[in-house]
Amino acid sequence: MRPTGKLHLGNYMGALHNWVRLQHEYECYFFVADLHALTSDYADTSQVKQNTLDVALDFLAAGLDPEQCTVFVQSHVKPHFELPQLLAMITPLGWLERVPTYKEQQENLTTKDLSTYGFLGYPLMMASDILLYQADFVPVGQDQVVHVEFTREVARRFNQFYKAEGSGPRAQGAEILPEPQVLLTPSPKLPGTDGRKMSKSYGNTILLSDPEEVLRQKIRPMVTDPARIRRKDPGDPDKCPVGDLHKVFSSQETLAKVYDGCKTAGIGCIECKGWAADAIVTLLAPIQERRAKYEQNPALVREILHEGDRRARARAEQTMQEVRPAMGLTEDLTGGAAPGEATQ
Amino acid sequence: MRPTGKLHLGNYMGALHNWVRLQHEYECYFFVADLHALTSDYADTSQVKQNTLDVALDFLAAGLDPEQCTVFVQSHVKPHFELPQLLAMITPLGWLERVPTYKEQQENLTTKDLSTYGFLGYPLMMASDILLYQADFVPVGQDQVVHVEFTREVARRFNQFYKAEGSGPRAQGAEILPEPQVLLTPSPKLPGTDGRKMSKSYGNTILLSDPEEVLRQKIRPMVTDPARIRRKDPGDPDKCPVGDLHKVFSSQETLAKVYDGCKTAGIGCIECKGWAADAIVTLLAPIQERRAKYEQNPALVREILHEGDRRARARAEQTMQEVRPAMGLTEDLTGGAAPGEATQ
Ligand code: SF4
Ligand code: SF4
Repeated sequence: MRPTGKLHLGNYMGALHNWVRLQHEYECYFFVADLHALTSDYADTSQVKQNTLDVALDFLAAGLDPEQCTVFVQSHVKPHFELPQLLAMITPLGWLERVPTYKEQQENLTTKDLSTYGFLGYPLMMASDILLYQADFVPVGQDQVVHVEFTREVARRFNQFYKAEGSGPRAQGAEILPEPQVLLTPSPKLPGTDGRKMSKSYGNTILLSDPEEVLRQKIRPMVTDPARIRRKDPGDPDKCPVGDLHKVFSSQETLAKVYDGCKTAGIGCIECKGWAADAIVTLLAPIQERRAKYEQNPALVREILHEGDRRARARAEQTMQEVRPAMGLTEDLTGGAAPGEATQ
Repeated sequence: MRPTGKLHLGNYMGALHNWVRLQHEYECYFFVADLHALTSDYADTSQVKQNTLDVALDFLAAGLDPEQCTVFVQSHVKPHFELPQLLAMITPLGWLERVPTYKEQQENLTTKDLSTYGFLGYPLMMASDILLYQADFVPVGQDQVVHVEFTREVARRFNQFYKAEGSGPRAQGAEILPEPQVLLTPSPKLPGTDGRKMSKSYGNTILLSDPEEVLRQKIRPMVTDPARIRRKDPGDPDKCPVGDLHKVFSSQETLAKVYDGCKTAGIGCIECKGWAADAIVTLLAPIQERRAKYEQNPALVREILHEGDRRARARAEQTMQEVRPAMGLTEDLTGGAAPGEATQ
């Protein structure tokens, strides 16, 4: 996840919530992609450090458990620099120029100059992020499927050129980089406070770390079904962003009360919004409790991230020890192993 | 230097010979650029390892003294992957597309598909190779001046965006990447055995490691001044490739004998070529002696390269410890330093 600052409900429902579940089913690696941030924010990097820490805190707060998965920071694991550089050798320029998100983002982010070499290579960095862990699956939303497809193409091309030398777990001649599969994250429709999709760029988000009062203040003025002009007009939760919040966060019981009360004008919108806020407060309570615990203990966070960096580094290094000799690179030029080289 | 295999007299006179002198005047870093080789030879990397070792051996044989300078292998020093990736963020695509050698090489090396992302980024890798050592000077031939100029532009742009945070030797707010100056290597005209410029691609080279008999066999059939058809025809060393060899390798005394004997038809071409071969044999004798010593002692070579890698890594890491925080990247997200992070 890119460090855009404190995470919001959209980030949570669109990814993090799913990850918390996946950590129990797979060997998972989750990282804060500080290098991704640099591809577009290179002109002002003053927020990168704080944003990286905030996302890491939100990871832990949301329930990623350092005992169950590996949480780390991308730039701390140096193979994240090495593999893209090596894959660059075999990646046709045309592949990168044709990635749909490339032109799209250049057109959308008009305030930033994205005609850089680094921005063009962004999909290659993402591909390396995946291939470095020889990942079988990548949990992404629909909008990222194209990047996983690109990753598969790069892996295929790599495997055409290079085979394992037998210096790692894979037998000599085996394929080194498996083609990862998409694990599509179900992404419920989640409106922001203005009724549009919740997104940092719209300024309509509810943060995982918003205190209860802030959260209620954000929900109170939300737009509702335009048909409910007066208290006695019936409405339809299917035409109301608050209804959408209920569908995501409320119990079946509350949801039934909302449908019934709204359609019969039995409840007021203020009351209905209060229930939505209640549901979100309930969801966020344990998350905020964990965040407070970690915020008060920076040494613990440091220790967790340091251990995550270490584990990720070890796993990535395992891949690199197959990739390097396959491409003709080796520290062992003269026959024996130099002392300590495996740790570099 | 790119690992193209065993080095020849052209490599020696055009670079190495000069480096041996420079190691006594400056703090020098010389490396075998195995990653450069991958930009064009990615489809067949089977020779990279042997070529890398051969160039390293020729470095040592030619007189680069591990006590006087740092000799290492590029891919062993991981910041050579990290810095290009970071500089990529700020490097406009257009700068790379306009580097004259880019289109040139694509047109010349028609047997290889060079329309890759890695090949386009080649000048950025070279720029990083230089900037990583915060180098003041780069000893290059005229053909590489354009790459140093590119490096200066990248450094300038970096310095516009980022300043030292005070975490390294440079004071807070200071420029991190000095713009390197060219130290132009005098490059004498050195003909190959066919009279054209000595170059591996022409197959007309005399290797530093050619045994005396091989060397004499290569020189014997060389073309000479076309005016000397018969033994009694006078010639002109200024119109003869063998004359060019004498100018580079022979003593003033021999050179005088060549001019006199050639112009008066006092000597034959066979004799004259023998003198040229003598001069080269004399030059190469200590070089080959050193090469034999190192070839017979792979453990020593390994130790030297390992120590060179270590020294280069330490120097490069010093630069990176200023570059990373300047770009908003730091391992120290929560305040204190994590144990052992400085060694990563
Ligand atoms: S009662 Fe609830 S669902 Fe119905 S319009 Fe009001 S806020 Fe929306
Ligand atoms: S005598 Fe020597 S310099 Fe003169 S043409 Fe013959 S080889 Fe050349």
